[in-house]
Amino acid sequence: MAMGRRYDTVSFLSDYGHQDEFVGVCTSIVRELAPHARLIDLTHGIAPFDVRAGSLALARSISYVASGVVLAVVDPGVATSRRAIAVEVSDGEGVLVGPDNGLLAPAVSMAGGAGRCVQLTNADYQLHAIGATFAGRDVFAPAAAHLCNGVDLMELGDEVDADLLLPGVIPLPQADDASVIAQVLWVDRFGNVQLNVGSDDLASTFGDRIDVRISAPTDPSGGVTRSAVRAESFAELAGGAVGLVVDSSGMLALAMDQRSASEELALDAGDQVTLSPSVASNDAGPGSTPQPVSIRPS
Amino acid sequence: MAMGRRYDTVSFLSDYGHQDEFVGVCTSIVRELAPHARLIDLTHGIAPFDVRAGSLALARSISYVASGVVLAVVDPGVATSRRAIAVEVSDGEGVLVGPDNGLLAPAVSMAGGAGRCVQLTNADYQLHAIGATFAGRDVFAPAAAHLCNGVDLMELGDEVDADLLLPGVIPLPQADDASVIAQVLWVDRFGNVQLNVGSDDLASTFGDRIDVRISAPTDPSGGVTRSAVRAESFAELAGGAVGLVVDSSGMLALAMDQRSASEELALDAGDQVTLSPSVASNDAGPGSTPQPVSIRPS
Amino acid sequence: MAMGRRYDTVSFLSDYGHQDEFVGVCTSIVRELAPHARLIDLTHGIAPFDVRAGSLALARSISYVASGVVLAVVDPGVATSRRAIAVEVSDGEGVLVGPDNGLLAPAVSMAGGAGRCVQLTNADYQLHAIGATFAGRDVFAPAAAHLCNGVDLMELGDEVDADLLLPGVIPLPQADDASVIAQVLWVDRFGNVQLNVGSDDLASTFGDRIDVRISAPTDPSGGVTRSAVRAESFAELAGGAVGLVVDSSGMLALAMDQRSASEELALDAGDQVTLSPSVASNDAGPGSTPQPVSIRPS
Repeated sequence: MAMGRRYDTVSFLSDYGHQDEFVGVCTSIVRELAPHARLIDLTHGIAPFDVRAGSLALARSISYVASGVVLAVVDPGVATSRRAIAVEVSDGEGVLVGPDNGLLAPAVSMAGGAGRCVQLTNADYQLHAIGATFAGRDVFAPAAAHLCNGVDLMELGDEVDADLLLPGVIPLPQADDASVIAQVLWVDRFGNVQLNVGSDDLASTFGDRIDVRISAPTDPSGGVTRSAVRAESFAELAGGAVGLVVDSSGMLALAMDQRSASEELALDAGDQVTLSPSVASNDAGPGSTPQPVSIRPS
Repeated sequence: MAMGRRYDTVSFLSDYGHQDEFVGVCTSIVRELAPHARLIDLTHGIAPFDVRAGSLALARSISYVASGVVLAVVDPGVATSRRAIAVEVSDGEGVLVGPDNGLLAPAVSMAGGAGRCVQLTNADYQLHAIGATFAGRDVFAPAAAHLCNGVDLMELGDEVDADLLLPGVIPLPQADDASVIAQVLWVDRFGNVQLNVGSDDLASTFGDRIDVRISAPTDPSGGVTRSAVRAESFAELAGGAVGLVVDSSGMLALAMDQRSASEELALDAGDQVTLSPSVASNDAGPGSTPQPVSIRPS
Repeated sequence: MAMGRRYDTVSFLSDYGHQDEFVGVCTSIVRELAPHARLIDLTHGIAPFDVRAGSLALARSISYVASGVVLAVVDPGVATSRRAIAVEVSDGEGVLVGPDNGLLAPAVSMAGGAGRCVQLTNADYQLHAIGATFAGRDVFAPAAAHLCNGVDLMELGDEVDADLLLPGVIPLPQADDASVIAQVLWVDRFGNVQLNVGSDDLASTFGDRIDVRISAPTDPSGGVTRSAVRAESFAELAGGAVGLVVDSSGMLALAMDQRSASEELALDAGDQVTLSPSVASNDAGPGSTPQPVSIRPS
């Protein structure tokens, strides 16, 4: 058996939640097969079946993850012909293990692109499945553990061409000097609304006050428009103003001070918003106080 | 002091949830008393006080749990005369620690039955309790830690006869050639509805399409009947059909593709369903497409 | 560089929840920077921005936490001029790391008071921040990891006077022989309602039955009064009675048997209740059965 690099850490992300024992069983398998390895839970709060949300969370995390194996399971196609894969990155400093459904792709890309890839077809490194519906337990966690033990990637199955792996889909904003049509990538626990717009993607002509048009697809009026102020911290938004802050991923996010911007603006992941320079912004002096305006009927 | 086997892993299941610091405090105690031991969270999402759900989750997990100590706390009778116990299994390869209320029984049975058992009466291996309502902290976690350190089981208290421990209660299905009266054991995060019917428990005469009668106890009409198709994977159920799959525990489960069968069928743990061969199944060709039928009023 | 004591454990509390990868990213950073350290999750279920609830949970936990570093992040003032601090306790047996907003104060007090304190101003021990909104990742977790590695506290930034740190606010009950005006400190997962009244704070004249007046601020009638019985265990409250038990922190808590007292009494953290000796209690014999009385309209 060819020996590869040994790893000490398995970083685990899934949509398993904490209600059931799914995470615990996978963790137990890594513990039993590779007792020296430490398992870190990145998150298991990805919404059920939401491959896109899982891929984005993994991409946001990847540059902070400890060297080693990443175990990622959001797998609506379990027990079908979708491939189970392992992908080396950074000259083997890391290996990502999961389904070939786009979940791993953005993180692999952020880690410098795929090195060697295999399809997890070697049953010697899997558990005998009772039922076929829990690949995390039977296929992915054992693969992660065996990699930690120094089993070479190529032992786990047939090599596959990285170019044939399913790509992730990250929507790009549509921008010109007058407006940016953006999409909500993520709403976090605090209600911050991350957009697919980088901190440098707004033209300097946009100024400090931005009109945010929220398109309600079912609303013939074309949606409502709110004013947001660019801010460095949540506390600058005291008084109930909506802000546009550079978030911890370097993206623009709609945010409020100790309140949920997601609830206030009725925005969720996947929704579309249009940013444009505020008509009023030229008039407002630098010290003007942003005024919250309720869009809710009284 | 008699020394026993040392253990390296504590696998922890409870109904403590993650909202409070209960799990963290128990984990801290194991960390302080037995620094060499690793604690694995099986799950803490058992519904409050639900001994039956906890016992089933533990039974589903036990064959995957790493050798060592299992710490299980779902304990509505805390601070009463219910016993706190520790039970050896597999010739001492494992010890289960928890209340004597049926929680441990199914897992002990699956692990080959009880070896030595003690009641946790020795205060030397407990924390001084402030209040008596947190036995996880004061009794069970310390016992688990001391076992990891090699304290012999018999040191922890008075030996008890395994035959006198409270048994768990697993409902058996009532089956004949024409029908199986089953009970819902578990609804998982994804809405899969596990029945107390093993994958081989349906007579071969049942065919690939099964009528599922859902008995609403308050409904004089006797409930509604849905058609389910036997399937190997969730993806076979594209289009909204209800399937009957062999789940990861080897039990039959009602399931849908990327949707909650529990919600669709209004089924929860403890509910009763009756399976019978579909009247239509003899007519349907092998390639027939299952048709979802809404039971909801429009 | 001055070297301090090395630590092996980081005990982590936050309001990050488990929905997102915040906890996982902080954990990864500690894993990467201080691979020898073990991270224990105390809880991440503190309500968003609820500094008071976080400070109380930390105070309840502190005497059980393993020696080492405590990482506590409930930080609504992130990215403002609120200080990031580290505070030594118990002659350096422990260090608490977090924002200077009162979160750490009650736990520091319970651990015997502050020793050396620094403001975390030394950028050499921080991550380069993309955006300024995730101090857990960029400031606090790195500080915790470097402390584990033996970096001396004084290296992390400028010393600050402990007397200038923001104190926590714990409300004191107002008591006389006839009544105690109390506040709800905490409602746990099981619906137990912890009051800011110690187990010895009720005058002995109060007897075993206590009137609990629940003040609904919006209710001109002055609220409703329920009768509670002092109890040692939840099971003594079978039949639906409300009890007053000494909880695991040594405080009095309103509780019910396998039901949520919080729901039954419509009480939440911060609410006020008034305890007084029950008028009926002198009449009731020692064996009298407590009678639940519904306050709900039928």
